[in-house]
Amino acid sequence: MKLATKKSNSKDGTLIVVSKDNKKAIEATGIAASLREAMEDWANIKPQLEVLYKKLNEGELTNSFVVDKQSLHSPMPRTFQWADGSAFIHHIKLVRQARGAALPETLATVPLMYQGGGDNFIAPTEDILQIDPSHGTDFEGEVGVIVNDVPMGITPQEALNHIQLIVLINDVSLRGLIPNELKAGFGFFHGKPSSSFAPFALTPSELGSAWKEGRVHLPLLVEYNGEFFGKANASAMHFHFGELIAHAAKTRNLTAGTIIGSGTVSNEDMAMGSSCLAEKRMLEKIHEGVIKTAFMNNGDQIKIEMKNEAGENLFGTINQKVRKI
Amino acid sequence: MKLATKKSNSKDGTLIVVSKDNKKAIEATGIAASLREAMEDWANIKPQLEVLYKKLNEGELTNSFVVDKQSLHSPMPRTFQWADGSAFIHHIKLVRQARGAALPETLATVPLMYQGGGDNFIAPTEDILQIDPSHGTDFEGEVGVIVNDVPMGITPQEALNHIQLIVLINDVSLRGLIPNELKAGFGFFHGKPSSSFAPFALTPSELGSAWKEGRVHLPLLVEYNGEFFGKANASAMHFHFGELIAHAAKTRNLTAGTIIGSGTVSNEDMAMGSSCLAEKRMLEKIHEGVIKTAFMNNGDQIKIEMKNEAGENLFGTINQKVRKI
Repeated sequence: MKLATKKSNSKDGTLIVVSKDNKKAIEATGIAASLREAMEDWANIKPQLEVLYKKLNEGELTNSFVVDKQSLHSPMPRTFQWADGSAFIHHIKLVRQARGAALPETLATVPLMYQGGGDNFIAPTEDILQIDPSHGTDFEGEVGVIVNDVPMGITPQEALNHIQLIVLINDVSLRGLIPNELKAGFGFFHGKPSSSFAPFALTPSELGSAWKEGRVHLPLLVEYNGEFFGKANASAMHFHFGELIAHAAKTRNLTAGTIIGSGTVSNEDMAMGSSCLAEKRMLEKIHEGVIKTAFMNNGDQIKIEMKNEAGENLFGTINQKVRKI
Repeated sequence: MKLATKKSNSKDGTLIVVSKDNKKAIEATGIAASLREAMEDWANIKPQLEVLYKKLNEGELTNSFVVDKQSLHSPMPRTFQWADGSAFIHHIKLVRQARGAALPETLATVPLMYQGGGDNFIAPTEDILQIDPSHGTDFEGEVGVIVNDVPMGITPQEALNHIQLIVLINDVSLRGLIPNELKAGFGFFHGKPSSSFAPFALTPSELGSAWKEGRVHLPLLVEYNGEFFGKANASAMHFHFGELIAHAAKTRNLTAGTIIGSGTVSNEDMAMGSSCLAEKRMLEKIHEGVIKTAFMNNGDQIKIEMKNEAGENLFGTINQKVRKI
């Protein structure tokens, strides 16, 4: 099943069900006002949405409408808990090297995760506002999962059963602010402004065999200013999503609607490209001795999407420009 | 005006208006279901709640009820944005000394702030669950503010106008987990499980002359296992709340209902005691050469409240025990 959110007067937007081919949609009127609210009663609401999804795909709904990309918000425009892991160790190695920071001793045994702010996500096609180019605006292409209520102390294996939806994320990062921020010792804050998401959230079953072992086994397609930038496979997560969820729930319950991110998708094979500018810059420095790629400036455009083996665009497209304000 | 939240089937609870003497209350039925929702339309809802508050205090409401402390949740049981500053520099100095961490170079010029998780606050009288005593459970007595929508880039002076409510916080901390967590570089996560709040949220005007210069000018009363522990004055914030809000909004908008914490209230005068165990332990080490106070264990009890000059308990009482699970 594919779900999305239409922009509305509510900060949560309006929940819609989207057809498999991304073309048609129907409001979930009478079932749930928003995806955030739907997640709180998911066991009851999911089957009702699935009935709509089936009818929509079979062309049985006379009140369906054509999907207008500009009208879509991120699938969950805000959530009470957004925690972002860093499960691709190749990414951690490159980014830490870039800012001259040491690798944690527990790199391969304990996931890195930061507490994000989930109050204010931006839409898939919304401009990334830049108040100062020296902030070093960067994109980070990620996969994420949305869970139902997760109890404290859950095991990684049990945690997998709590995954209800899968999403794509652009975890916007301000590289110019991060080194000093992390040096102060309290973690990310200014360096991680509002993220955006691809418009469609998918149930794991919608991914078919591409969803296994707690990972999405498909390349993340990244295009920067109209040119190929990356196609790293999201299956290369060192920690799978069950491990990330269990890590997040080690000392707390997680509320239904919590989003857990994978961290920047990254592969060791350089032919796969990158999913953020920081990695590309570091690779340039290592292999060419000089950084050639700048961080994002006014007008720079980032596209992130994921296709299945049949070439179908599964999650819709993150397509954003930086705009100086 | 005093507001509180009654536990209910909803994770947001039910909004109630509480009388000045903390004794009587009335549901805000027909005005707003919850404080979280009220904050989103605060300009319209506040005046309606104030009418109720006036009538309640004048004994005009026949459907008021007696406040039952056990029925109360934290004023906002969950929020989309919870960011905790560390505005009492004396606290930063002691706690960093305790864990052998350097002071940030920008200690006096840039506020320290961490991104908290606001999905799952616990009630003022709810047990603090301890899954492992080696986690080093500690309390942290703090003051906080709840704001309406705050635009990115706001100035500290303008930010003061966005403060709508004032609260007391117990920012539960797991000292045993924090050093390794911060060493890994991504900030707090496991070390900061769910916080609790004193039951009543107050409008700034309710504090009278004790609210000025963006600070609460009253001592925070902390009692540990039935004995005096601290009465540090909350006016000693190096950065006022306007500065903390502006810091939080430097690269993002803050959504209505955002809670900004002061960090642990702390005074240089040792006669004022402390608002967390970590400080007391460090002072013991400095002045007596040996740490005598343990972190919290099963059955240990923490009480936090604040009284005005007339001796009135303004926010109600945080009164929690640690319970080993």
